[in-house]
Amino acid sequence: MKKSMKPEDLSCPLPITNLDTIQLSHGSGGRMMNELISKLFVWAFDNPALRRQDDQAVIDIGGQKLSFTTDSFVVDPIFFPGGDIGELAVNGTVNDICMNGATPLHLSAGMIVEEGFLLKELETIVLSMKKAAEAAGVTIVTGDTKVVNKGKGDKIFINTAGIGLIEHDFDISSGNLRAGDIIILSGTIADHGIAVMSKREGLSFETPIESDTVALNPLVAQIIEAGGANVHAMRDPTRGGLAATLNEFATASGVGIRIREDKIPVNPAVTGACEILGLDPLYVANEGKLVAVVAKDKAETVLEAMKSHPLGKDATVIGEVISDQAGTVSMMTRIGGWRIVDMPVGEQLPRIC
Amino acid sequence: MKKSMKPEDLSCPLPITNLDTIQLSHGSGGRMMNELISKLFVWAFDNPALRRQDDQAVIDIGGQKLSFTTDSFVVDPIFFPGGDIGELAVNGTVNDICMNGATPLHLSAGMIVEEGFLLKELETIVLSMKKAAEAAGVTIVTGDTKVVNKGKGDKIFINTAGIGLIEHDFDISSGNLRAGDIIILSGTIADHGIAVMSKREGLSFETPIESDTVALNPLVAQIIEAGGANVHAMRDPTRGGLAATLNEFATASGVGIRIREDKIPVNPAVTGACEILGLDPLYVANEGKLVAVVAKDKAETVLEAMKSHPLGKDATVIGEVISDQAGTVSMMTRIGGWRIVDMPVGEQLPRIC
Repeated sequence: MKKSMKPEDLSCPLPITNLDTIQLSHGSGGRMMNELISKLFVWAFDNPALRRQDDQAVIDIGGQKLSFTTDSFVVDPIFFPGGDIGELAVNGTVNDICMNGATPLHLSAGMIVEEGFLLKELETIVLSMKKAAEAAGVTIVTGDTKVVNKGKGDKIFINTAGIGLIEHDFDISSGNLRAGDIIILSGTIADHGIAVMSKREGLSFETPIESDTVALNPLVAQIIEAGGANVHAMRDPTRGGLAATLNEFATASGVGIRIREDKIPVNPAVTGACEILGLDPLYVANEGKLVAVVAKDKAETVLEAMKSHPLGKDATVIGEVISDQAGTVSMMTRIGGWRIVDMPVGEQLPRIC
Repeated sequence: MKKSMKPEDLSCPLPITNLDTIQLSHGSGGRMMNELISKLFVWAFDNPALRRQDDQAVIDIGGQKLSFTTDSFVVDPIFFPGGDIGELAVNGTVNDICMNGATPLHLSAGMIVEEGFLLKELETIVLSMKKAAEAAGVTIVTGDTKVVNKGKGDKIFINTAGIGLIEHDFDISSGNLRAGDIIILSGTIADHGIAVMSKREGLSFETPIESDTVALNPLVAQIIEAGGANVHAMRDPTRGGLAATLNEFATASGVGIRIREDKIPVNPAVTGACEILGLDPLYVANEGKLVAVVAKDKAETVLEAMKSHPLGKDATVIGEVISDQAGTVSMMTRIGGWRIVDMPVGEQLPRIC
């Protein structure tokens, strides 16, 4: 039986007038998106798993801890240097599943295709998904296909949801940072965002810039093996870049974060492209990097474990967690001054994933 | 590390030329969609769960049987008599989870919103989802929000994926029909499709026609309790309607199906609307009905159990499974002749869910 539906019984803590509309920045991984999520979605659907605001939910089914996540991919263009929307849709969800240490197992695939889209391109994308799933060791077990009229979509949007198994008994979450923890970054930043952006804008650079899209679960397994319960938080800094991830960590844990600009690896070609495009690499999306926050005593061990894996060969300590300046990320610049690294506010790079 | 991606190594059994494009009928639940799914998606992602081509995958995680499914909702209009896209997105996935007898537990929600969409409408939709989830007894534990540029989407598309727990040890699947089984339909058909269609086309009828969208898990629980392992298959006949579901059953099980037109309940207003619109109710989508295929000995018990539940009060036996005419659905018409009820081929009703 249907319950009576009276949405007017409720109103969410996000102030909404009859004229307010969705902006591109509501999807950018910055402050507007976080506000929309916490004041509308988390408020409405309220439950402990969602309240953590991690990129994945930890759910207990019959005493078994599972990791469950979803992501829709609307990247434009759908083919870009280093990958395509299909590979991204598999790797992105695999990465979200495993950032709490889970082993990714199964994915779903929901396709929304625009009428008139070339079947050959769909085939290419599906084969990319197949290969990415094989590489990550996951199976795509269920799916759905919808077609929208020409002009009511944009080629193809792909949603993937995924399930993983958590076999350890500790908790890895953005709310678990403690003063003294060490912040390790697995490699260079901003490659994915700049690769997509330069393709979209028709820019070419002397050194080609490729997306870093890859499934990070083997690296995560190595981190967990080395650090165990000393691994307090992990996240892949996608939309909003490293800056958004660190700010979310600082806010969720009520701690301050200090990083050093000279420790953050950026490919020289990416640095050059960012200068031309007027972008700050700290805010540009990555699709094959992770940030791990580790207790000080184990940081060296975890760092070595990461460096011994090809996906973490450029891993480096970029900063630490402090007890004061709660909710704030500050960075020592190359010239030795300090600046606040804020949450992104406006829209830097729409439809980057 | 990235594996080399060479999609040209492979080519799928679906013949695809460089000019072939996606048509609306690739998403309509008919023959073209089935061919795309089996010859591209199932071929590429090949695994036992997917090969069953049920609306949900049964996966085993650490000895626990889970039901996992996904659906994207692109219904147009997003608000229609009897519901909206938010309620539909919850109920649709809850129904897919439970059609193998699973208890639905957790959902994900992936929103793709068009720039410029009214926040008030998003709030209404989110509150519909909240209420539908509460009514179905599931929690929305993880989500994602993407925004696409104005004109590159159509207001809002919602993907939901979901997980349920299977606590029985028998198998309910479209491939399990046996000659002699009885086919039970839980109530009237075509209400949802006609409600959406009439709103889209601006038609009004003397008797208002409302969508039947509802979560069927309480009815499913009652069916399982009454029929146990004698329940061989269940499905909610959405896109492609009752005709598509029965054809999929007949094909998957290699059996024939015989139904009687005079046993299929249709609201008189829906019959009238179908006549005006030139639609056959057998092919029109439902969102709150199910077909159960039950061993003959237990059919009466299951039917009574269904009728005792408000969601199945109009349940009725509509036909039976036969051993010959494998893969074919035939119907005795009201005037006593027989006709073949084929899979839908073209596109009757795009974007109905």
